[in-house]
Amino acid sequence: MSSIWGNRIKISIFGESHSNAIGGVLDGLPAGIKIDFDEIMVDMDRRAPGKSNLSTTRKEGDIPEILSGYFNGYTTGTPLAFIIKNSNTKSSDYDELKNLMRPGHGDYSGNVRYRGYNDYRGGGHFSGRLTAPLVFMGSVAKQYIMQKKGIYIFSRVKSIGDIVDDQIDFGLINDSILLKNLRTKKLPTINEQKSLEMEEYILQMKKNGDSTGGVIECTCINVPTGLGSPFFESFESSLSHLIFSIPSVKGIEFGRGFDITKLSGSQANDEMSYDGNTVKNYTNNNGGITGGITNGMPIVFRVAIKPTPSIAIPQRTINIEQCKDEILSIKGRHDPCIVPRALPVVEACAALNIFDYLIQMEGINNAKSK
Amino acid sequence: MSSIWGNRIKISIFGESHSNAIGGVLDGLPAGIKIDFDEIMVDMDRRAPGKSNLSTTRKEGDIPEILSGYFNGYTTGTPLAFIIKNSNTKSSDYDELKNLMRPGHGDYSGNVRYRGYNDYRGGGHFSGRLTAPLVFMGSVAKQYIMQKKGIYIFSRVKSIGDIVDDQIDFGLINDSILLKNLRTKKLPTINEQKSLEMEEYILQMKKNGDSTGGVIECTCINVPTGLGSPFFESFESSLSHLIFSIPSVKGIEFGRGFDITKLSGSQANDEMSYDGNTVKNYTNNNGGITGGITNGMPIVFRVAIKPTPSIAIPQRTINIEQCKDEILSIKGRHDPCIVPRALPVVEACAALNIFDYLIQMEGINNAKSK
Amino acid sequence: MSSIWGNRIKISIFGESHSNAIGGVLDGLPAGIKIDFDEIMVDMDRRAPGKSNLSTTRKEGDIPEILSGYFNGYTTGTPLAFIIKNSNTKSSDYDELKNLMRPGHGDYSGNVRYRGYNDYRGGGHFSGRLTAPLVFMGSVAKQYIMQKKGIYIFSRVKSIGDIVDDQIDFGLINDSILLKNLRTKKLPTINEQKSLEMEEYILQMKKNGDSTGGVIECTCINVPTGLGSPFFESFESSLSHLIFSIPSVKGIEFGRGFDITKLSGSQANDEMSYDGNTVKNYTNNNGGITGGITNGMPIVFRVAIKPTPSIAIPQRTINIEQCKDEILSIKGRHDPCIVPRALPVVEACAALNIFDYLIQMEGINNAKSK
Amino acid sequence: MSSIWGNRIKISIFGESHSNAIGGVLDGLPAGIKIDFDEIMVDMDRRAPGKSNLSTTRKEGDIPEILSGYFNGYTTGTPLAFIIKNSNTKSSDYDELKNLMRPGHGDYSGNVRYRGYNDYRGGGHFSGRLTAPLVFMGSVAKQYIMQKKGIYIFSRVKSIGDIVDDQIDFGLINDSILLKNLRTKKLPTINEQKSLEMEEYILQMKKNGDSTGGVIECTCINVPTGLGSPFFESFESSLSHLIFSIPSVKGIEFGRGFDITKLSGSQANDEMSYDGNTVKNYTNNNGGITGGITNGMPIVFRVAIKPTPSIAIPQRTINIEQCKDEILSIKGRHDPCIVPRALPVVEACAALNIFDYLIQMEGINNAKSK
Repeated sequence: MSSIWGNRIKISIFGESHSNAIGGVLDGLPAGIKIDFDEIMVDMDRRAPGKSNLSTTRKEGDIPEILSGYFNGYTTGTPLAFIIKNSNTKSSDYDELKNLMRPGHGDYSGNVRYRGYNDYRGGGHFSGRLTAPLVFMGSVAKQYIMQKKGIYIFSRVKSIGDIVDDQIDFGLINDSILLKNLRTKKLPTINEQKSLEMEEYILQMKKNGDSTGGVIECTCINVPTGLGSPFFESFESSLSHLIFSIPSVKGIEFGRGFDITKLSGSQANDEMSYDGNTVKNYTNNNGGITGGITNGMPIVFRVAIKPTPSIAIPQRTINIEQCKDEILSIKGRHDPCIVPRALPVVEACAALNIFDYLIQMEGINNAKSK
Repeated sequence: MSSIWGNRIKISIFGESHSNAIGGVLDGLPAGIKIDFDEIMVDMDRRAPGKSNLSTTRKEGDIPEILSGYFNGYTTGTPLAFIIKNSNTKSSDYDELKNLMRPGHGDYSGNVRYRGYNDYRGGGHFSGRLTAPLVFMGSVAKQYIMQKKGIYIFSRVKSIGDIVDDQIDFGLINDSILLKNLRTKKLPTINEQKSLEMEEYILQMKKNGDSTGGVIECTCINVPTGLGSPFFESFESSLSHLIFSIPSVKGIEFGRGFDITKLSGSQANDEMSYDGNTVKNYTNNNGGITGGITNGMPIVFRVAIKPTPSIAIPQRTINIEQCKDEILSIKGRHDPCIVPRALPVVEACAALNIFDYLIQMEGINNAKSK
Repeated sequence: MSSIWGNRIKISIFGESHSNAIGGVLDGLPAGIKIDFDEIMVDMDRRAPGKSNLSTTRKEGDIPEILSGYFNGYTTGTPLAFIIKNSNTKSSDYDELKNLMRPGHGDYSGNVRYRGYNDYRGGGHFSGRLTAPLVFMGSVAKQYIMQKKGIYIFSRVKSIGDIVDDQIDFGLINDSILLKNLRTKKLPTINEQKSLEMEEYILQMKKNGDSTGGVIECTCINVPTGLGSPFFESFESSLSHLIFSIPSVKGIEFGRGFDITKLSGSQANDEMSYDGNTVKNYTNNNGGITGGITNGMPIVFRVAIKPTPSIAIPQRTINIEQCKDEILSIKGRHDPCIVPRALPVVEACAALNIFDYLIQMEGINNAKSK
Repeated sequence: MSSIWGNRIKISIFGESHSNAIGGVLDGLPAGIKIDFDEIMVDMDRRAPGKSNLSTTRKEGDIPEILSGYFNGYTTGTPLAFIIKNSNTKSSDYDELKNLMRPGHGDYSGNVRYRGYNDYRGGGHFSGRLTAPLVFMGSVAKQYIMQKKGIYIFSRVKSIGDIVDDQIDFGLINDSILLKNLRTKKLPTINEQKSLEMEEYILQMKKNGDSTGGVIECTCINVPTGLGSPFFESFESSLSHLIFSIPSVKGIEFGRGFDITKLSGSQANDEMSYDGNTVKNYTNNNGGITGGITNGMPIVFRVAIKPTPSIAIPQRTINIEQCKDEILSIKGRHDPCIVPRALPVVEACAALNIFDYLIQMEGINNAKSK
C-alpha cells in the first residue's frame, strides 16, 4: 500500500498539498505513552517552511490536531490519528503546471500511475509537505525510545554540494558531539566553518534561480543489541524502506557505506573485545548493524538528497495535454535546498524503525513508559 | 517478519546453512505461468559456489526441488514451494566458531537476537546460501516480466576495490551493451580490461588470506511507466527493502545516487521531450524513477557489497562462553569476493519488485503470460 | 493491527465516541472512481441514530468530510481520508461509568487490554459509532462494484428475538424481491407482517428498559465466479474477519450455515448444470462459495447481533477503582435494538470484501469504472 | 495472500494432495521454545485418515520432517519450515474427475479462479490434507501457551446430524470435564451415550454411500484477560479468519452465538463480581470475549462442518470440457464424516490465535518458555 509502513506499529499518512488537510494514523501503540507536545513542536518547526533564509518563504502552520487515541495526557493504545490543516495555499501558482510536467518531479510518472486523476496542485500527494505527519509520528517514537531506553538520535548535514563536513569517528561518539546540540542549528555540522560555507553556497544557488542537494548523516546511540532479523526484516531493510519514502532521496548507506567496498576484509571487519561486561567493536565500519541486526555500536547511516527539482531556470519539458515540447520556468516560492528541513524527517524514520523493533522484542505490555 | 516480502506476491525463504534443506515459497502468483527450468539453472549456477577460481571451492548442488504450485508445466496459482537440499556440509569446520564471534558477521548480534538458540553452523539462517531461493524466485519473475512486457534485467560489476568499470550513459542504453551478454561472464564489465584487473586483484586478496568487496550496477529496460506510489510504496522503498535482505549489502543508490548531491538542480533534473508519441528524458540522473514511480527510462541502481567477512588473517574477537577476548583465524573454504555471485541475487530482487507492481496494476487474471 | 483490514485495498478506522472526530482511510483505490455522495448519505442515514422510534434519540450529524484522495469528482488513487466530527456528546452521562464496568460491553476487557488508559467516555474506541466510517467506505465500494460489474447487495432483518422472517429460496432470487427496495424500510423483511411484529416487540423491550438482538441476512448478486482462494484468503475468511469487527456480532454463517450440519451430503451438495453457457446450481446451500471461492450463485450469509448491552434494568457489576461489587442501571439514550442500524454496516463489509478480491483479479488499472 | 495468516507470528501452508509434499512455515517465533514431538504426533494422529472405522481407509503417514528453524531441541527463532511427504496417492482415482466438477467441492470455483491450471488430483491445493500443517503448527502453539500460561484447549463433538451432545455450563467448567480427557476419544462428547448414537449414525451414512456433518465446540481455559482489540483485530476476527480456512466450515459462533439473539439484554449480559481479587462473570454468554477482547472467562466457540461433499450417491453435475451435464458417482475412499478429524484442526486455530496475541502483548523476548 502506498500509505502504510511497519510490522508491529503501523504508520499511515494521507493528504495532498492543497487538500483540506494532511495527516496520519499511528496504530499498534502501547497504551500509556506520555507525550510532550513542546518536544513535538520543536521537530515540527525544524521541518516547517519559512523558518530561515535557506528555505521557501511560504509559511505553514503545521500545527497537528489530534483526533483520537490520546486521552488525559497519554496514548490510549487505540489508533492515534491527527491532521494538519492546509492553509496559505496559492492554488493559482500551480494552474499552468497542470499539463506541464516539471522535470525531476513525479508529475509525469504520477500522471501515468494515476491515469490523470491525481491532484496536481502543489505536487498533490507527492508533496514534501506529507513528511510533516512523519515528523509528528517520529517525534512520538523518539520520546518513547528515549524515556524507555535512553536512545538518542541526532543528525547533521554531512555535505551540501561539494562542501563536506568533517568525519566523525563513530567508534568514539562522545559527549562533546552531543553537547553541540545539533538540533538547534540551522545547518548542523561538526565543523562550524563548513556550515557557513554551506549557507553561502545555498544562498548563491537561490540567487541563481537554481538549487542544490546534500547528504544527511544520522546517528542513533544506546540502541539495544539484537533488533532486526536476517533477510526481509533486516534493520537496514525496514529503515531504507522508510527513508526512500522521503521525496528526493536517491541513496542510503550504512556505516562506511559505498566506501567499504574499497577496503579489504581485514580493514573492514569490526574487531571485537570485552570492555568489562560490555561488547565493543574497535571500529564501526558496519554502522552498528551486522547480519541485519543491531550490534550495540551506534547506528550510523547517510542519506543522499537530490537538489530541489523546482527551479526558476528555464527547462525543456512536455505539455501532456497538447502533446508537445515546451520551456518551463517554475515560479513560486521554493526551497533552494531541502536538506536542512529533511533532518527531522530522517530522524523520524530512524526513531520509528527502532520503535517497531522494540515492540517486537518487548511487546506492548512490557513496553510501557514511566 | 523475517521471511516475508511483498504486497501482491509474497515471497518467503527459510533454512539454515546446515539444516536439512533451505527453500522458499512464492505466493500470490498468477496461474498459468510457463517456467523454463534451464533458464532458472543458468541463474542458479551463476550464484552457486565452486564455479570459478574467484569463489569458494565448496560445491553445492543447488538443485531446486519443487514441492507444490506447479503442474503440467505451468504455475497453478497456489503457493509455489520448493526446497534445495543441503549437502557437502562440513559442520566440523564450524565447531570452534560456536563461541567465537566472527567479526563482520551476524554472529554476535544474532546470538543476542536469538538468545543463544540460533544454529551457528555455517552461519545458520544468516548464511549467504539463503540467497539461492531468492535467485530461484527471481528467475521465475524474470521469465514472467520478459514474456509479458519484454522487460530485460542485466547487471555488471561496477567496481572491485578501487578498480572501476567505465560509465554507461543510461540515457543511451543500446543493443551493443545488451549484445555483450553480460550474464555469461565471470566478471561482467563494459570494459573487458577492467575485468582482468579485477580478477587479478581478487586472486591477490585470496592469496593474502584476505577479501575484497565491490559495487554492482543493475539496469532494467522496458519497464512500464507508472509502477510504484509515493511514500511507503515507492519503487525505491520496496526494492531497497529487498536489496538490504542480501547479506553484506551496505548501500544502495538510484540513478546518479550520492553524486547527484553535487549537482545543481538545473544539472540534475532530467529534462523531457516527446520522441514521437513516446516521452523521453534527455538524461537519466533519476535512474528511471521520479516521485517513487517508474518514468519509462531504464531503472538503474547500484549496490555496495562489503568485503567477505570470513578471512584467514587473524582478528581480535570475543569468546562469548568464556567472556574473554581471543584471536581468530577463520579456516574453511571462503569466497575472496562475493560480488560475482551476488549479481543474479541483485537481478532477482529487481525482477521480483517489478513483478509485484505489475500485478498491482494488472491483477492476476490479466497478468497471464502466453 | 487494530485498525487495518484488507489485502489489496486497505481500510483503516480511528476515533473514539467523544474524541474530536472519528474517521477512516481507504487506501489502494483505483484512480478515477466517480463518487455519488447522495448515495453515500442514504447509507449513512440508515446507520445514523435518531432516525426512527426504534433507535436512540441521540442525533448525530454523521456528515463525512473528505480530507484527501478526492479531486474534481473522482478518486485520485491516493489515500482517501475522511473524518466525521463528534458533537452532541454528553460526556457527563458517562462520568459515573468510568469505574463501573457495564456488563456485555468491552469496558472490563478493554480496561485490562489498555491498562486503564483507554478513553471510557461513551465506550471510547469501542463505540458502535466507529461503524460510521465503515459505512462510508463500504458505500464507495458498493458504487464501484455496481458500476463495474452490476453487483447488487441487499440485506434484511431475518429475525428479532423469536420473530423470524420468511425463508427465501436463494436459488431463485428474483426481481420481485429486489423491487421490494429493502433499503428504504425501517425493518426490512420479506413478509411485511413480520416487520410489524418485530417493531412491536422492540418497542416493548424499550418500554421495559431492556433490549433485544436479531439476525441479519445479507445477499450479494452478480458476484463474478472465482473470487477468493482456499485457506487463509478464503472469501469467508476475509469477510468474517470484517464482520466480527462490528460490535455485538456473535456469529456468522454462510448459505445454510449451522443447519447444513443436519443434512446428509446428498441433500447438502449443490448439484450443477449448464443453463446455456452459464453454470447454475440447483440449490444454493453453500451460499455462493465453495472451496473458499465464489461460484457464481448469490452470496448469502447471516450475522447474529446480540441484544444491546446498555440497558436501564439494574445489573450486578464491579467497580474497578474500589474493587467491590455494585449494582448498575445504565442511564442515557440507548438503542433497544441495534439490528436495523447494523444493516448498512453488514452490507459495507460485504462490498469491501468483494471490492478487494476484484482488485486482486483485475488490478487497479483495469479496474477503472466508467 | 492465500497462504499467510497472522500479525506477529506468520503461518503459511503450501502443497497439493498429490504434489511431492505439503508443508508449512511458522515465522516470527520466539527462540528457545522446547518442542515435544510426541505431543505433536498425538494431534497429527487425531487428524490423520485411516485411524478409525469413521474415517476413510486411506492411510497417510503424516510424519512432519523439519527443514529449518529447530536446533538442539529448541526453536531457533528463524522460520520453522517443515514438510510432510505425499505418498499412498492413487492419482488414477481422480483421472475421470478432471473435467467433472464434484458438487459441494471447490472444483468449479477453483477452475475459474485458477483458469484451469490448478492441480485437480485429489482436490489439489483444496484438499483437507492441507490441514495437517495447520495441526503441526497449532501443536507447537499449544505447547507454548500451555507451558507459559497454563492455557488448555479442548474440543468436543457438539452434534452430528440431529444428534446433540449435552450442554456445558461454561461459567462452570471444572475438573470433571477436563478429566474426561476428550482428546483420546474417537467421538468426544460429554454424554457418552450420545457418542455411541453418533457413531451408529455415521456408519449408517457410510453404508448409504452418503455423508453427514456436525458441529464442533472448542473451549480454551486460563486465557489471560486483555487479548485482542476492537474492530479489525478483534479476537473473533482473527480466529474466524483462521477457522474459515478449514475446508467445509460454514459457520462460527461465540458463546451463545446465534441463540443470544433470542435473549433480552438483561438475560444476555454477563453480570460480573469479584471473587477475591479475580473478576468473574456469573454467566458466559459472550464466550469469554467482550469488545473483541478476552475477558478472563473460558473462550467458547462452535464451528459448523458441512457433510463431506464426496459421496458415492449419483449426483447431477457438469463436464467443463464438453460443456454438458452429466451424472457423477464419486469413487474412492472418503470420510463419511469429517468432524472427528477436524477437532485438532479447530484446536490448532484457537491455539495459534492465542499465541499471536500473547506475542503482541509480551514480545518475543519476554515470551520465552522455560
